[in-house]
Amino acid sequence: MSAANKIKNIVPLLDRVLIQRVKAQEKTASGIFIPEKAQEAMNEGVVVAVGKGALNKDGKHIPLQLASGDRVILPPFGGSNVKVSGEDYLLFRDSEILAKVVEN
Amino acid sequence: MSAANKIKNIVPLLDRVLIQRVKAQEKTASGIFIPEKAQEAMNEGVVVAVGKGALNKDGKHIPLQLASGDRVILPPFGGSNVKVSGEDYLLFRDSEILAKVVEN
Amino acid sequence: MSAANKIKNIVPLLDRVLIQRVKAQEKTASGIFIPEKAQEAMNEGVVVAVGKGALNKDGKHIPLQLASGDRVILPPFGGSNVKVSGEDYLLFRDSEILAKVVEN
Amino acid sequence: MSAANKIKNIVPLLDRVLIQRVKAQEKTASGIFIPEKAQEAMNEGVVVAVGKGALNKDGKHIPLQLASGDRVILPPFGGSNVKVSGEDYLLFRDSEILAKVVEN
Amino acid sequence: MSAANKIKNIVPLLDRVLIQRVKAQEKTASGIFIPEKAQEAMNEGVVVAVGKGALNKDGKHIPLQLASGDRVILPPFGGSNVKVSGEDYLLFRDSEILAKVVEN
Amino acid sequence: MSAANKIKNIVPLLDRVLIQRVKAQEKTASGIFIPEKAQEAMNEGVVVAVGKGALNKDGKHIPLQLASGDRVILPPFGGSNVKVSGEDYLLFRDSEILAKVVEN
Amino acid sequence: MSAANKIKNIVPLLDRVLIQRVKAQEKTASGIFIPEKAQEAMNEGVVVAVGKGALNKDGKHIPLQLASGDRVILPPFGGSNVKVSGEDYLLFRDSEILAKVVEN
Repeated sequence: MSAANKIKNIVPLLDRVLIQRVKAQEKTASGIFIPEKAQEAMNEGVVVAVGKGALNKDGKHIPLQLASGDRVILPPFGGSNVKVSGEDYLLFRDSEILAKVVEN
Repeated sequence: MSAANKIKNIVPLLDRVLIQRVKAQEKTASGIFIPEKAQEAMNEGVVVAVGKGALNKDGKHIPLQLASGDRVILPPFGGSNVKVSGEDYLLFRDSEILAKVVEN
Repeated sequence: MSAANKIKNIVPLLDRVLIQRVKAQEKTASGIFIPEKAQEAMNEGVVVAVGKGALNKDGKHIPLQLASGDRVILPPFGGSNVKVSGEDYLLFRDSEILAKVVEN
Repeated sequence: MSAANKIKNIVPLLDRVLIQRVKAQEKTASGIFIPEKAQEAMNEGVVVAVGKGALNKDGKHIPLQLASGDRVILPPFGGSNVKVSGEDYLLFRDSEILAKVVEN
Repeated sequence: MSAANKIKNIVPLLDRVLIQRVKAQEKTASGIFIPEKAQEAMNEGVVVAVGKGALNKDGKHIPLQLASGDRVILPPFGGSNVKVSGEDYLLFRDSEILAKVVEN
Repeated sequence: MSAANKIKNIVPLLDRVLIQRVKAQEKTASGIFIPEKAQEAMNEGVVVAVGKGALNKDGKHIPLQLASGDRVILPPFGGSNVKVSGEDYLLFRDSEILAKVVEN
Repeated sequence: MSAANKIKNIVPLLDRVLIQRVKAQEKTASGIFIPEKAQEAMNEGVVVAVGKGALNKDGKHIPLQLASGDRVILPPFGGSNVKVSGEDYLLFRDSEILAKVVEN
């Protein structure tokens, strides 16, 4: 898909991470549609791309905590919206991300 | 319970701690129900998970003061609400927590 | 008293101090009751518990100026209210306390 | 063209980059005109000129991440508008630019 | 007088200074009373007590510029009001005081 | 002219630069007067005088990027207006100036 | 004059300078009175007294740029008004003063 291809071309700068918000569930487990108002506001996302890290005093990149593919908890405010090929993404600084969701 | 299992999978980043607010008492010691308005607003919580700590200049994690299981006094403002499997949690920075409640 | 016992269990974190505001005088020296409006707003308190101190660069606690039992002058704003066993307390940072009252 | 010539003469100072916003698409791929309201607000731009970099403690310029010709994602707020020969440009600090768009 | 005794017992913390505002002149030099509206708002005060000084990196007190007894020019805003034995005092940080008035 | 002489006497302090805004063009190239509303708001200026530079830790002046005579792009906000002999000037900090206009 | 004597007794603290604003011209060069509305708002002043300078890390005073007697350009905002013997003065920090006026 061209949207998927295009997103691979976006390289966040410094300590920024590109995130796609996880969409709210539109059906229950048993397949019943949930009306839009009853859908939980989702504060989860998936990291799509990460920067090289901010620069330290010696001009070296400080490695990020997050990597592409990580599922994360997003802060309720902040981040910049960007639209790529009609899809909405968010750019956050690595340190603004609240938590990582680890599947066992 | 799946909520308990899921919460174990949330890993706070840097110096953040995941906290579940202690619910207001709904009955008196002798078992009489307290009407909702008379319930004291609770500013106590239990630490559910902690991050590895913020990074110092040398890129090492600064250990947190709090550990999972600690009962704490929360500040009246601040923190980010997160909802996991329908339960409400709060993410604070370790240094924002006001005090620890120690049972003798 | 259980309130006194419970308060001993609250351990302020870092450079915080737990303070109980001195109550406004309800009677004159000669025993006459002062109507509530005429009672002076009290900005004095007693330190009930202190933290170990904020951490310096080397990860050591910087000792506090105040100790449990000190009578202090509180700033007009700031501090966090906490309620323990129905009693009101305040948590301040050590450096926010304006002055100490020394009895000769 | 004289506008192109003139823009070459603008030298951003310190860590600033001169950017020309990519214009919203006025036609679909098949050549149909898109009414102005339906045009997507574009947050992409092209770097036209860059400064030598901010100065570090030793008075040396810290090199910029961006170079002339880079296609970039702009933050939704910030930057200063400048008009050169009737064309609109933006001046941002290098570190304010969110991401680079890399064509494969 | 007991107010004077009590004020000696107030020890400002860190770099704070305890100041008593100079009262506006109520009479002219020749003894005529000045109506309250015509009295100049006074921004002068006398230092009543000083702290040991803020702590430097090595944990030592940085000496204050002001000493008890100094007559000073107060900034138009800032400072905390404290009432001791019915008298009003102000607590400022040493560096907030604008100037010293030296009598020749 | 006395205005020109007087301006030579103004010495900006530290890292400040004294700037005279370039006046909006009142005629087209072919000599037709442009009504005031149609005149472009000019964000260009000429540096009239510069300070010695801010002081570094060792008490030495950090040299400025700009020199007297430089044509510059001014930020849309900021700067202090000063009036000398009826002429309007602006004082900016050297680092606030966005770009330099270089004539080839 | 006693006002002049009194002002000599005001010693600005740290990096503060005491300034008397230059009064707006009330007559033209040829002696005609200028109505108050037409008088230019003056942003010039004369330095009346200077502090010893702010303290550096080693506890030494950083010398000021300005000296008593300097004629200066004042910023449009800031400074604290003080009234001494009925005369209005301003206290600024040395680094807030925009420029010095040098008479040839």
